[in-house]
Amino acid sequence: MTEAPPKRRTRGGGRAGAVIRRGTSVIEQMPWNPPVNIDRPTEPLTPEGVEAIHDGAMRILEEIGIEFLNHEALEILRKAGCTINGENVRMGRDFVMEWIAYAPSEFTLTPRNPDRKIIIGGKNMVFGNVSSPPNYWDMARGTKVPGTREMCRDLLKLTQYFNCIHFAGGYPVEPVDLHASVRHLDVLYDKLTLTDKVMHAYSLGKERIEDVMEMVRISQGLSHEEFDASPRMYTNINSTSPLKHDIPMLDGWMRMARRGQGLVVTPFTLAGAMAPVTMAGAVAQSLAEALCAVVLAQIIKPGCPVAIGTFTSNVDMKSGAPAFGTPEYMRATQMTGQLCRLYNLPMRSSGVCAANVPDGQAMWETSNSLWAAVQSGTNMVYHAAGWLEGGLIASPEKFIMDCEVLQQIQRYMNPEIVATGPDEIALDAIKSVGDKGHFFGIQHTQDRYSTAFYQPFLSDWKNYEGWEAAGAIWTPERAHLMFKEIIASFEPPEMDVAIRDELADFVARRKAEGGAPTDF
Amino acid sequence: MTEAPPKRRTRGGGRAGAVIRRGTSVIEQMPWNPPVNIDRPTEPLTPEGVEAIHDGAMRILEEIGIEFLNHEALEILRKAGCTINGENVRMGRDFVMEWIAYAPSEFTLTPRNPDRKIIIGGKNMVFGNVSSPPNYWDMARGTKVPGTREMCRDLLKLTQYFNCIHFAGGYPVEPVDLHASVRHLDVLYDKLTLTDKVMHAYSLGKERIEDVMEMVRISQGLSHEEFDASPRMYTNINSTSPLKHDIPMLDGWMRMARRGQGLVVTPFTLAGAMAPVTMAGAVAQSLAEALCAVVLAQIIKPGCPVAIGTFTSNVDMKSGAPAFGTPEYMRATQMTGQLCRLYNLPMRSSGVCAANVPDGQAMWETSNSLWAAVQSGTNMVYHAAGWLEGGLIASPEKFIMDCEVLQQIQRYMNPEIVATGPDEIALDAIKSVGDKGHFFGIQHTQDRYSTAFYQPFLSDWKNYEGWEAAGAIWTPERAHLMFKEIIASFEPPEMDVAIRDELADFVARRKAEGGAPTDF
Repeated sequence: MTEAPPKRRTRGGGRAGAVIRRGTSVIEQMPWNPPVNIDRPTEPLTPEGVEAIHDGAMRILEEIGIEFLNHEALEILRKAGCTINGENVRMGRDFVMEWIAYAPSEFTLTPRNPDRKIIIGGKNMVFGNVSSPPNYWDMARGTKVPGTREMCRDLLKLTQYFNCIHFAGGYPVEPVDLHASVRHLDVLYDKLTLTDKVMHAYSLGKERIEDVMEMVRISQGLSHEEFDASPRMYTNINSTSPLKHDIPMLDGWMRMARRGQGLVVTPFTLAGAMAPVTMAGAVAQSLAEALCAVVLAQIIKPGCPVAIGTFTSNVDMKSGAPAFGTPEYMRATQMTGQLCRLYNLPMRSSGVCAANVPDGQAMWETSNSLWAAVQSGTNMVYHAAGWLEGGLIASPEKFIMDCEVLQQIQRYMNPEIVATGPDEIALDAIKSVGDKGHFFGIQHTQDRYSTAFYQPFLSDWKNYEGWEAAGAIWTPERAHLMFKEIIASFEPPEMDVAIRDELADFVARRKAEGGAPTDF
Repeated sequence: MTEAPPKRRTRGGGRAGAVIRRGTSVIEQMPWNPPVNIDRPTEPLTPEGVEAIHDGAMRILEEIGIEFLNHEALEILRKAGCTINGENVRMGRDFVMEWIAYAPSEFTLTPRNPDRKIIIGGKNMVFGNVSSPPNYWDMARGTKVPGTREMCRDLLKLTQYFNCIHFAGGYPVEPVDLHASVRHLDVLYDKLTLTDKVMHAYSLGKERIEDVMEMVRISQGLSHEEFDASPRMYTNINSTSPLKHDIPMLDGWMRMARRGQGLVVTPFTLAGAMAPVTMAGAVAQSLAEALCAVVLAQIIKPGCPVAIGTFTSNVDMKSGAPAFGTPEYMRATQMTGQLCRLYNLPMRSSGVCAANVPDGQAMWETSNSLWAAVQSGTNMVYHAAGWLEGGLIASPEKFIMDCEVLQQIQRYMNPEIVATGPDEIALDAIKSVGDKGHFFGIQHTQDRYSTAFYQPFLSDWKNYEGWEAAGAIWTPERAHLMFKEIIASFEPPEMDVAIRDELADFVARRKAEGGAPTDF
């Protein structure tokens, strides 16, 4: 069964956002406040370029087709009017555009804590934790090790702790010490009890996705009808590029669509490997693979909430290794953003890097990918914190370092910084200081200094001598200390005892039934 | 005297851009190719916001005035029609706009190697080395130490070596082992012989700036008339914020203006300290301080080349320490860009961070500042490589890490990445691969793979196991090894022996004369 539930407490559990003290210094984070992207997107494509990529995506769907390995999906698409040859599905552009027009341009995902609901679409931007690395690395271990439930729980605590993490992605690390047949039960129990943010379900066979939907429903104390009435969770599927959707992913996709839950489809089109070496071709292929899944969902339940993901990057042509946060990755993300706006669909991208440890390379690659998310008008940023080694490693230090960058993006989107009223132009203040003295002490400064500027929780702004006196601690070591402290003082968000018991009972029963098949 | 000149050689000296081999791996860098910024700038200000900041800057010049501590400058401004009270100068907005309209929107700086000439303005973007830190830090030393001539020479070698460094800034580290009276002579000799890129002169009293102009003239084998005919070098002055221009800076500014050389004025307006706590006010003040210097230059020599610099950032309101690469810094840079376009003047910003060592923080702060340079339409990026501790430390590892980011920005601006012709949409390639196999081996990939993607020289894209087998070397250590190798194999660019001798003779003569006064 699941481990012993945390000690029962009354209200006051969720301490995310509270100030914690460490020695004489204070760690303070920004409150929950998902950013609204006020920047005009960066648009490298001309209108003709947008049309060329759109035309390419449509011709792929019309002339080449996509393999749908799931027979139920094939039957649905056949009935709707697609051309089916074996498992190959072709569809015309008018048909595509007609069906995707049913998809909303914006939707809301509501978790068990309604204060943590998020809007996907429009100018809204939300960040999620790293998902699905099989391995883990931290400064104390100093080497790559397979993920465990304990590591997964620690990363879930970070997911809950940081206010700039707005939704829970997949497993922040794969707990390979849990048998695959019951892993989803234990991890979802952990996710639902350790966090109160929006939940994700893997589309890995019907038992898993049905179990997770049921656990999310229980966690929110909803009837089945209430659960179906609005999106309470989401799944993310990847096509098997090139040009293929597999059985379990499509199964989960269709089950979630029927129940009106959030859907994200993210082809993994590495240019030069699973997609053309040219970025426009890789983006066109990615869109074709995504749009046909959107069509399927809309046929099943017109108006169900769906977002298009991009994972288009390039390989290292010397070694074939995937590269992330590259110039090509940035441009592919921006181009995808232009097409998502053409299709009037929300967009997902990621915070990614190829670096193996949380060093300078990790941060310039991750910064590149996060700024590309901003520039592209991305709504949902997956893997926004904790990702290393092209997604093969989860790291708590990287998680915390990324959160520092995410908070800065959140602050960057605060329109107050660029306000230009008379109080901000501050002519009187400038006149009062004149050419002598400084602005530290004047009233105009005193009235604003506590909120005027971004305040980091991890960046060290001391001068060299001050930093040296404090131990000369490099960034990943500082993040490691913070990690240990957050875990040590973590208090899970409040949960009704009856609900927790119901969840635990569900897990116990499903385990007794043998969990989910593992023959995939 | 200067040290012994390098051994005399025939053509083939300048090896920057050549491929060097290290063990079995190859370090390759992109060729010289200053980027053209194809992105539409990020513009956080509405037209009304632009007008409000412009109005603020104009009212500062009209109603408050700027102190000009230099009497010659005061006399020039008085004659031109400014209102002078003591050292306070006020000028009307029509007067300002009339004079700055003489300044070109774009100009060229030509160094001794004409292949290394750079265009300042328009959509052109050029990067320069870190300038003026008094201290040095590298991985071998592991601590902050005062700069020396040897360290300065090493950083100049990096300046020359990297093709993504387009101009030489001020001293990449202050060689405090050289007496201040002759430091400019020795360092300029080093700069002119170790690099062939555009030169900078400090405006630190008439002797220094005249000596540097003379050395640059000699290095290019020009007559005085030829030197004066077009910009061959530049200076950068900082106002003494708030609202003051000092004697030696103005002296250098005016001497360079008379000879038609490049001029950059960069107020150092830290919001909350030397400028209002509100970013719009800090930007308005910065522009006022800059524009009055532009006016002075245009009165002296209408049409002389000038750029506006921004160094507006914020302080840490807890400690008063300057912060760099913050959200507020980014927005201030973007706002300044909007105003520079209003004034039709080229713009300078910087690559900056507060971090003390070349770690993750250093790279997210520097990435923020470099992306702000891109987003703002900055033409000239100062301190683009090598900066730490708010500019108090120069580091060769940071220099090389920054060059990796700069190269990526250069590649990011390559329009080929976002080309959307039929060859790039690649429908035939997609059709030929279908849903089976991959794109590695096909002709479409083979024809393009060697140039399709950015190839890093420092980023390690190996997987964890490969990286571990190669020594598990973190980014700054890799940069350190590369630094040692570049220095060991460095060959200075070709220089005519007669010119080198003339430079050495000039240095010897000026040293015999006592150099420059040191009573500033």
